[in-house]
Amino acid sequence: MMRFQALPFLAAILSLSSLSFAQAKPRARDLGVPFDGTPGTNNAITDVKGVEVGHTTLISGSGKLKVGEGPIRTGVTAIHPRGKEANDSVFGAWFTLNGNGEMTGTTWLEDSGFLNGPIMITNTHSVGVVRDAVIAWKVKRGEPDMEGYWWSLPVVAETWDGYLNDINGFHVKPEHVFHALDTAHRGPVEEGNVGGGTGMICNEFKGGIGTSSRVLNAKAGGYTVGVMVQCNYGQRDQLRIAGVPVGREIPEHTVWKDDVGSIIIVVATDAPLIPTQLRRLARKASLGLGRDGSYSGDGSGDIFMAFSTANPGAAAPKGVRDLKMMPNDTLNPLFLSTVQATEEAIVNAMVAAETMTGIDGHTAIALPHDRLREVLKKYNRLVK
Amino acid sequence: MMRFQALPFLAAILSLSSLSFAQAKPRARDLGVPFDGTPGTNNAITDVKGVEVGHTTLISGSGKLKVGEGPIRTGVTAIHPRGKEANDSVFGAWFTLNGNGEMTGTTWLEDSGFLNGPIMITNTHSVGVVRDAVIAWKVKRGEPDMEGYWWSLPVVAETWDGYLNDINGFHVKPEHVFHALDTAHRGPVEEGNVGGGTGMICNEFKGGIGTSSRVLNAKAGGYTVGVMVQCNYGQRDQLRIAGVPVGREIPEHTVWKDDVGSIIIVVATDAPLIPTQLRRLARKASLGLGRDGSYSGDGSGDIFMAFSTANPGAAAPKGVRDLKMMPNDTLNPLFLSTVQATEEAIVNAMVAAETMTGIDGHTAIALPHDRLREVLKKYNRLVK
Amino acid sequence: MMRFQALPFLAAILSLSSLSFAQAKPRARDLGVPFDGTPGTNNAITDVKGVEVGHTTLISGSGKLKVGEGPIRTGVTAIHPRGKEANDSVFGAWFTLNGNGEMTGTTWLEDSGFLNGPIMITNTHSVGVVRDAVIAWKVKRGEPDMEGYWWSLPVVAETWDGYLNDINGFHVKPEHVFHALDTAHRGPVEEGNVGGGTGMICNEFKGGIGTSSRVLNAKAGGYTVGVMVQCNYGQRDQLRIAGVPVGREIPEHTVWKDDVGSIIIVVATDAPLIPTQLRRLARKASLGLGRDGSYSGDGSGDIFMAFSTANPGAAAPKGVRDLKMMPNDTLNPLFLSTVQATEEAIVNAMVAAETMTGIDGHTAIALPHDRLREVLKKYNRLVK
Amino acid sequence: MMRFQALPFLAAILSLSSLSFAQAKPRARDLGVPFDGTPGTNNAITDVKGVEVGHTTLISGSGKLKVGEGPIRTGVTAIHPRGKEANDSVFGAWFTLNGNGEMTGTTWLEDSGFLNGPIMITNTHSVGVVRDAVIAWKVKRGEPDMEGYWWSLPVVAETWDGYLNDINGFHVKPEHVFHALDTAHRGPVEEGNVGGGTGMICNEFKGGIGTSSRVLNAKAGGYTVGVMVQCNYGQRDQLRIAGVPVGREIPEHTVWKDDVGSIIIVVATDAPLIPTQLRRLARKASLGLGRDGSYSGDGSGDIFMAFSTANPGAAAPKGVRDLKMMPNDTLNPLFLSTVQATEEAIVNAMVAAETMTGIDGHTAIALPHDRLREVLKKYNRLVK
Repeated sequence: MMRFQALPFLAAILSLSSLSFAQAKPRARDLGVPFDGTPGTNNAITDVKGVEVGHTTLISGSGKLKVGEGPIRTGVTAIHPRGKEANDSVFGAWFTLNGNGEMTGTTWLEDSGFLNGPIMITNTHSVGVVRDAVIAWKVKRGEPDMEGYWWSLPVVAETWDGYLNDINGFHVKPEHVFHALDTAHRGPVEEGNVGGGTGMICNEFKGGIGTSSRVLNAKAGGYTVGVMVQCNYGQRDQLRIAGVPVGREIPEHTVWKDDVGSIIIVVATDAPLIPTQLRRLARKASLGLGRDGSYSGDGSGDIFMAFSTANPGAAAPKGVRDLKMMPNDTLNPLFLSTVQATEEAIVNAMVAAETMTGIDGHTAIALPHDRLREVLKKYNRLVK
Repeated sequence: MMRFQALPFLAAILSLSSLSFAQAKPRARDLGVPFDGTPGTNNAITDVKGVEVGHTTLISGSGKLKVGEGPIRTGVTAIHPRGKEANDSVFGAWFTLNGNGEMTGTTWLEDSGFLNGPIMITNTHSVGVVRDAVIAWKVKRGEPDMEGYWWSLPVVAETWDGYLNDINGFHVKPEHVFHALDTAHRGPVEEGNVGGGTGMICNEFKGGIGTSSRVLNAKAGGYTVGVMVQCNYGQRDQLRIAGVPVGREIPEHTVWKDDVGSIIIVVATDAPLIPTQLRRLARKASLGLGRDGSYSGDGSGDIFMAFSTANPGAAAPKGVRDLKMMPNDTLNPLFLSTVQATEEAIVNAMVAAETMTGIDGHTAIALPHDRLREVLKKYNRLVK
Repeated sequence: MMRFQALPFLAAILSLSSLSFAQAKPRARDLGVPFDGTPGTNNAITDVKGVEVGHTTLISGSGKLKVGEGPIRTGVTAIHPRGKEANDSVFGAWFTLNGNGEMTGTTWLEDSGFLNGPIMITNTHSVGVVRDAVIAWKVKRGEPDMEGYWWSLPVVAETWDGYLNDINGFHVKPEHVFHALDTAHRGPVEEGNVGGGTGMICNEFKGGIGTSSRVLNAKAGGYTVGVMVQCNYGQRDQLRIAGVPVGREIPEHTVWKDDVGSIIIVVATDAPLIPTQLRRLARKASLGLGRDGSYSGDGSGDIFMAFSTANPGAAAPKGVRDLKMMPNDTLNPLFLSTVQATEEAIVNAMVAAETMTGIDGHTAIALPHDRLREVLKKYNRLVK
Repeated sequence: MMRFQALPFLAAILSLSSLSFAQAKPRARDLGVPFDGTPGTNNAITDVKGVEVGHTTLISGSGKLKVGEGPIRTGVTAIHPRGKEANDSVFGAWFTLNGNGEMTGTTWLEDSGFLNGPIMITNTHSVGVVRDAVIAWKVKRGEPDMEGYWWSLPVVAETWDGYLNDINGFHVKPEHVFHALDTAHRGPVEEGNVGGGTGMICNEFKGGIGTSSRVLNAKAGGYTVGVMVQCNYGQRDQLRIAGVPVGREIPEHTVWKDDVGSIIIVVATDAPLIPTQLRRLARKASLGLGRDGSYSGDGSGDIFMAFSTANPGAAAPKGVRDLKMMPNDTLNPLFLSTVQATEEAIVNAMVAAETMTGIDGHTAIALPHDRLREVLKKYNRLVK
């Protein structure tokens, strides 16, 4: 990573990637927002064993937009379903609630039922560089895929950060992709203005990365569902938190007049689901988003993905495979957990994000924690 | 309709179909439930000009289930997009949020972009009789379709009413289908225990038919969006009304432990949309359902349909057609209206439905209006 | 079946259902049509162990069409994936190449990944009666489904036989459905003017039911792929058999000027495939149809279904299931077999069908066997 | 384009892009292959008015593969639906026959119904660089899109050329993308070893770019259908040309044992079709591919796209748009033309391509023209 150290924005990256910093911040439920269900240890997608998340955060410059020179408010996030060392695909599926966005690699995901390699999230204009860099990273590591071929159809999703970021400057480079892939880790996940979420705006508050998880009880199988979002959607006056019309109660400093953003939702589980079932899980994320008030505007790229870390070795190219599958009749706790964790991950993204000023002085304010508590109290929904 | 008058349950049909009766009942917003947006004259799908709705309601018998003999708690509902006299298809599209249900006719709907004829809704085991009867009704009227052929692929949807109704008795007959088709009308729409919704259960309260509408402001085109639901989904403790956890606050008399029901949602508009756009409208209904707390369980047939009454003559089989189309960039008010009208139509179904006892003494209680008001007040959401 | 014996057309049913009769007829490869791959014992869908096929054939009357009175040239065909006694669903999937048709039950098939119960094929206007009768048949047998509920979403497909049959007379009755279900059998499958295929027309020759199969070699797993078609598609001048322009060489007695018909293709296999893989199999049937020259006209309902009899017990509602799955990398022999068996089943349907005259003296001629041989010889493709 | 001129492979690019060279080569029908229907002036996708095609062809080096150093046998092809100067989207749709490939931008294509900007085709590992470079090209030209935003979701497809090309060397650069976009032209289209097709292999012969067109008669509207393929699919022994088993008759110099390749098919028309109809057109391409013998193997990325140049201004973001639409009932000539032009474009690709040797001495031989004529004659199908 020598070349990487020469970049001027490395300081910003390292500070934002610091776990201790991330952990010090309160999360939605710390502020008294009521949520249902039982989260896992970190209330994060990484509660699903094997899942690793890494961010590269690029923040530098300020002032007037000079295309190619900044200011820069962007990044890239990597999710390894089985950890960065694994060379074993997972079952996966996807769903589009509103298609004004990109998620590459979905054609083969849908037809094969497998997600090969990591899921990457970045800004709209950097999908290409991230995609090819994932192949380069794989080539560098010297791994043929399980079939022995050397081709790859990486999954890369995006939302648009051009309100704060010099998006036409194409500031995400291959080394930033490698960094996110290489530094991905288990445990707590950094939220808010990090990785692909760095310059994102959610319900006209500062948005970005958010995560949450649920653990099923033993009778339901004890499985974990983890959700991570890159949250860039929404119109302030539609925002509901725990059913409360928070957006209308905090009308200050709005950004635009429409629902022009997007949201990428990634659902992970260790429950043994086949692709048909994972597609259903991905679709359920819509209902969590609905609870938070979205109407999924025309400009929104609301694209969801679900994968299962069960069934290791299912993608091996030879010999009839042995699989495990939950009956459809037993999926309800997973469906409900997906809805709940999605609802919470979105709020976590807004709670973690901090006020940011980007190009031309454009500013997106953080969701004010004290005001949020006041509003919840007004509607008798504050839990502590 | 001679044969029809001989049926013992006709009295029930006529009384329930009476408009004066339907109109006397309070609706959700009469009870002080807050909803956003501006409804049309009747706050009903029939606010979209041309749309007609007819119900046949079958209620007879009581006591222990004798398959084939009752008790009967079922029916059939017909929606004519351009009125019963029209012989002109509308653009349409559909979407499945959870597929444990049936909507016939969707293969050609999806591929042609047109909805030919009425939309019918009934119980799960009567889809077939209703389907063929729609063809018979068309044949009786002597109408070839616009292409001059005599074939037909009717759209018939269903939800399951076997908790209250002798569903395996197959009590819906062709004459009931003709009655719903022939008595369909404009103006107020009967809600609750009527038509296909007669025996349905929603969030473990008595459910059934519900409707609502929104009118866009002049700047957005002044179009109308109308929604009708046959509401049979949901788990009590998940129910939210206006964001308030109403289901948990009224835990009495629940019916089952899971989300085993279904919901059919029909979205109508006079806005000039092509099928690609209508598919998006259908998908947005998910978000209205999400606002009411659904997690769309495995047993749910959550199937949605959208059509536009604009572009009359678009389906004419000869000559290049002239169409109107709204730009995608201007669809947000329609999307938001769809979400809002879906959210309200579901609540209207529960508010209108009355406690019903069916087979083996099974009972589904009505949502108690006074309790609903108390709960809304507790959470500072009662509007009057 | 008392009522059934009173029906005037029973004689026709019984004679056409007779196996000895069916077996006496030459099939396409008996006439010297070259096909690739190795067929199973009966070169039929029933070569997939467990699969049973039954037909009810309704032929009566002649002369001028009197709606409701005939002439009748129609029927219904039943396919039991695991035999009529089984109460165990199979994995399944479907695909639409051109959607001007109906296949009920596909919404839940697609979302659950399971095909519950038989696949039925009939005429366009009898889909409803067949659908509800399948439920009635299930109820009569006293079987709850595996989940213990009593609801059912049967799969019923159709093509249009109104050129020869009094389709608006609705002559298919529940007892005909029961007969097809109850008399389904293993072994040779009747082809041509039988069951749902009775009144069908294919490439402007008399069409109907056709079937074929392929057996993979041991290295590829030794699995069987069986295909059955209800063949009602095509325009004479497009017909290719074994790549030879047979349609242009036999231009006599054409029926219409367009591709107005349809084809239902059912692919069965005992290879252990999950639903994602079966969807791919269903899609490949398009390529077999393409080899025979179809361009899948606007009026065509080209709807395909695939199921696997492997993984018995996969649909059991409780406990994590153990499954087997072939790697995607090993599917090519199955794909090729599907294409080959589809190509052959279509030709088998035309070879087996016999000239039929129906309403108003409309006639569809059989593909003349001697002419077919001459044409193949002319193009150096006759194999014996 | 200064930097570009410094590249060592420019000579190869220029020579291969030369029109006079391309025109001198015989095409499939010049060799006596029989095809149906009437082609346009150039028998090319550019017969659809407005369509421009540009190629950048990268050929340099020979000998042993050194990743990053070559040999290089790759390129990029650009299709501008309305020409490079237009800033007006076209209606479009897509279809996947077998999903082992990538076509970016399809999520918004499917949901919006519009194709914004050019369609690009390249090798599997260069999709990303091409995608971002299309955005950069748009930014360079200073064009906001019609909505005034600066975001973009380019459509880029691929097939795999790693048998001949150093695909992991990532040799396609932004300037190559700009070159293909900037040099796109009307008139004859270069075929064979050019652009994205440079290193492709088709039915184990050398493949690449191929094109064909059909013109409807006046009664059918006089519209044009043009098809362009990047042809990299197929197993030799399955190849049929004009129905003749050409692959088996020319078994020499095969490359692999399976159908491991892919095919991208682009269908263009000036007929006024809405997206629902274009999706059907895209699907029909399968049948043309079927006629040539494909069984669409597991490794195949068989992804098809269709667009219509009718309805200029349909994508304007404000005001209700006026559209033209052909009735579904009149689409058959377009469907048939799509099948026919696809069938021919594939053969044209093989006929135009020349024997190529790439990495490690791997060679794909050209389809020998004289042998092709001999085989057609043997089967009585040679037309001159």
